[in-house]
Amino acid sequence: MTQSTATRRTFLKTSAAAGAAAVAGCAGEIPADKVTYTEADSDPRSLDAARSTTVDRVAADPTDIPAPIDRDEPATVEVELTTKEVTAEIEPGVTFEYMTFDGQVPGPMIRTRVGDTVDLTIHNAEDNGMPHNVDLHAVRGPGGGAEATMVAPGETERVRFKVTYPGAFIYHCAVANMDYHISSGMFGIILVEPEEGLPAVDNEFYLGQHEVYTDGETGQEGHHTFDMGAMAREDPTYVLINGEKFAITPDNYADMTAQTGETARVYYCVGGPNLASSFHPIGSVWDEVYPQGGIGGRPQRNIQTTPVQPGSTAIATMHYPVPGPVKLVDHSLSRVARKGALAVIDVQGEEDPEIFDPDA
Amino acid sequence: MTQSTATRRTFLKTSAAAGAAAVAGCAGEIPADKVTYTEADSDPRSLDAARSTTVDRVAADPTDIPAPIDRDEPATVEVELTTKEVTAEIEPGVTFEYMTFDGQVPGPMIRTRVGDTVDLTIHNAEDNGMPHNVDLHAVRGPGGGAEATMVAPGETERVRFKVTYPGAFIYHCAVANMDYHISSGMFGIILVEPEEGLPAVDNEFYLGQHEVYTDGETGQEGHHTFDMGAMAREDPTYVLINGEKFAITPDNYADMTAQTGETARVYYCVGGPNLASSFHPIGSVWDEVYPQGGIGGRPQRNIQTTPVQPGSTAIATMHYPVPGPVKLVDHSLSRVARKGALAVIDVQGEEDPEIFDPDA
Amino acid sequence: MTQSTATRRTFLKTSAAAGAAAVAGCAGEIPADKVTYTEADSDPRSLDAARSTTVDRVAADPTDIPAPIDRDEPATVEVELTTKEVTAEIEPGVTFEYMTFDGQVPGPMIRTRVGDTVDLTIHNAEDNGMPHNVDLHAVRGPGGGAEATMVAPGETERVRFKVTYPGAFIYHCAVANMDYHISSGMFGIILVEPEEGLPAVDNEFYLGQHEVYTDGETGQEGHHTFDMGAMAREDPTYVLINGEKFAITPDNYADMTAQTGETARVYYCVGGPNLASSFHPIGSVWDEVYPQGGIGGRPQRNIQTTPVQPGSTAIATMHYPVPGPVKLVDHSLSRVARKGALAVIDVQGEEDPEIFDPDA
Repeated sequence: MTQSTATRRTFLKTSAAAGAAAVAGCAGEIPADKVTYTEADSDPRSLDAARSTTVDRVAADPTDIPAPIDRDEPATVEVELTTKEVTAEIEPGVTFEYMTFDGQVPGPMIRTRVGDTVDLTIHNAEDNGMPHNVDLHAVRGPGGGAEATMVAPGETERVRFKVTYPGAFIYHCAVANMDYHISSGMFGIILVEPEEGLPAVDNEFYLGQHEVYTDGETGQEGHHTFDMGAMAREDPTYVLINGEKFAITPDNYADMTAQTGETARVYYCVGGPNLASSFHPIGSVWDEVYPQGGIGGRPQRNIQTTPVQPGSTAIATMHYPVPGPVKLVDHSLSRVARKGALAVIDVQGEEDPEIFDPDA
Repeated sequence: MTQSTATRRTFLKTSAAAGAAAVAGCAGEIPADKVTYTEADSDPRSLDAARSTTVDRVAADPTDIPAPIDRDEPATVEVELTTKEVTAEIEPGVTFEYMTFDGQVPGPMIRTRVGDTVDLTIHNAEDNGMPHNVDLHAVRGPGGGAEATMVAPGETERVRFKVTYPGAFIYHCAVANMDYHISSGMFGIILVEPEEGLPAVDNEFYLGQHEVYTDGETGQEGHHTFDMGAMAREDPTYVLINGEKFAITPDNYADMTAQTGETARVYYCVGGPNLASSFHPIGSVWDEVYPQGGIGGRPQRNIQTTPVQPGSTAIATMHYPVPGPVKLVDHSLSRVARKGALAVIDVQGEEDPEIFDPDA
Repeated sequence: MTQSTATRRTFLKTSAAAGAAAVAGCAGEIPADKVTYTEADSDPRSLDAARSTTVDRVAADPTDIPAPIDRDEPATVEVELTTKEVTAEIEPGVTFEYMTFDGQVPGPMIRTRVGDTVDLTIHNAEDNGMPHNVDLHAVRGPGGGAEATMVAPGETERVRFKVTYPGAFIYHCAVANMDYHISSGMFGIILVEPEEGLPAVDNEFYLGQHEVYTDGETGQEGHHTFDMGAMAREDPTYVLINGEKFAITPDNYADMTAQTGETARVYYCVGGPNLASSFHPIGSVWDEVYPQGGIGGRPQRNIQTTPVQPGSTAIATMHYPVPGPVKLVDHSLSRVARKGALAVIDVQGEEDPEIFDPDA
């Protein structure tokens, strides 16, 4: 990795990076060969050709979740995360260099119970180009574990912590320029169940929203380079659920299905790095929401749209009295219509014209 | 209506539109003669002359609300909505082509009670140029009713649904490019009262915030064309309450008046399509707020500023111990000072210097 | 003060200012010699040289808070505020003309108890160039007191009001172009304790976030002029906690320290004028949060990230089982890494490897 050329503009950015280092308390650098820094007045770019992908699918499977915990006492939970830098498609013909936990966006869901001790091992894959680490919002301790888990490519670190409060907590990479790492895909959920567990539901789904800043236009074919300037302006090229445009929909990965009469719980995290989500199920309502993912008070009820801040989550339940797709969106609808933020649960079953009659 | 010219840039936008179609599950197209797609680096436009208006007032009257429900049992409620495309002024000298429900922004407030069945008929006025429909957040069913209510100009559709959970829920057009339709004015509230009703108040007010994206500058006289590029960048020209700049204020429509000692409830919806509101009453406080309009838990109390997400609402109450204007704003204050988001309740009555003494 | 030159563009801005006057109901003008109005496509500026500062430190000391109230009955509380326009550094080499209450950002914290009467005197320092006033969200009365406290340079006004509802409420300047005044630093908190007081904690901290819009780039050395265009676009140059980049951190003002085993309450206000904060303690969690600063219901518990709207606050508590820095951020992380929003509590004490073991 080479340092960026020392123009004045670059110097300013490097200073910013140094400042950011104070946040995570660890080293990090901007890889000059991997990012651009456009101004708002930049002309449209002509992009390089799309690159060969190193993984076919970067979107996490929303049903790939550890089972609910049925223990009555604390345990030690072993967790292993591997940071992987991969090239994949945001949508067909559009490639991007993702950074990930375990090759997926969001990273694997970790499941624990209040009082558990977590033994977390982090590997930084040898062929990676950058240092990584992990800050878990379930941790009380410096940087949420960031300093203790700092790993250069090829390295392994371990940290042990006790989870002492219940909720769904985000974890994310927190090296310097953490916003660049998160925008590249490095975030996920660690769930800390309360002692009594959560009420049983028929389906649990796990999804993560984040925004990607590139030097291309949305939908422009070719290889998109990360754009630090667009990120500073909070002007994303894509807003995604599970890391690809319209990833978890019948046209792509039809992973989320349900039957009428069933109940569901959605664990939703927003990596950001910058935008809050207005999380809404089209064709339904959230029966209950734990706002910002914190368990400890009464949930809110009958919520159409719940704010999920960047660096936060929601735990939201619903049921399906009638069939039809339930479309999960950020109700900032241009992010859906223009930038890709959509996931669909395909609900099959019996019509109930008392509840909904399309042919009245 | 002609299709847009097939330049590469247009092709990208059309792809986006196709993607958006997946959201609503219905057809729709961008009318190339009605929109522009500016880049962030566009030079200021010279606008065409202001057009003849087809309606004088597009701002809904905030006091035009159905009476509180005094039934003790469910009923069938007949609702008729007509989608109307009209030309009106955002402010004097500034014309814009609105899309509306019933010629007003926000659309008519629909009032129901939990357990009611709603028979909703939607007409698309014959002289309109575009398809429309309606997604109601009070509906459990595909698209919140969007597919079942899809109407081309001159068509009529009907849908029947039961309202099963209480709260103030937004409704909005949800054809493809729904963000364009909402930004043009197509949103409103359906209120679902709880079985026991809501506590009696002296005044109820109904208001709706949304943002408009055009190719002109704020305040620039002439005809403003819708700007898909500015919408994708979430960079609005106007942020409005009830569809016109400073619409519901003493200088324009002095609809909201009250007396000291009275109580009020405000039903506030945010169409967006993209921006969350920070809803605050200048010179007062929200005594109680049902956040995001969901009824089912305890309201929050003594809230100065409540977030209202795009595609959401708030139900907020207050009382007036002293006279003077109460100014309702999005406390993102540049949207007030620069872009038009202001509505005023004129409170008359006796001073109470124990509470407030300006001449101390 | 001279009026701005009457170009067409300036005319539009002046119209906007006139509109803004309707909000506060009082006069005000844009000082043409102090602001610019850039377009999104402006070329980078070459700035004038940094100016001599008139104060060395503009960042308020977060521990400079009135003591908790131990009265059992209402009292009359005398408050004096002086508006001061000062030149100070946002970061080394970067100067800016702040507007402040009492020369600090945020302004002094005012502490009262429900039922108290506040006698507030406001002075506008003689050498100031602009009118100022104060709108307190704890006031029921026109403009939250704005009209009654309107002062030209050299003037003094007084207002008396009763605080009737508990919570942490923001106060801010509310002359026309109030967004410009707030973005320049004019905001703070008035705390209204409930009758029974708040639970005792070991430490209380007081912090305020706001964003600054200038014609320079972040970090560019020289004198930054206020930019009305960037503010209208909501595209800030800096996002700050206590008015300076990384102000309350060990490298600058190491004001916030604590010991393991202690508890803390943070009073956090967001002046804005435009951006909501996603308030998070890195390496910890909020044990309890009164969302938007309103006291009157149950607080939320175990909240990782709480939204704080512009023109609002949060009251949030935590405790520290282990040592290490707790870094308070807006979790829109580019505002931390690129724009300066960071404050650090230095927690010293005994390690507790059961809770957190970095060397596992």
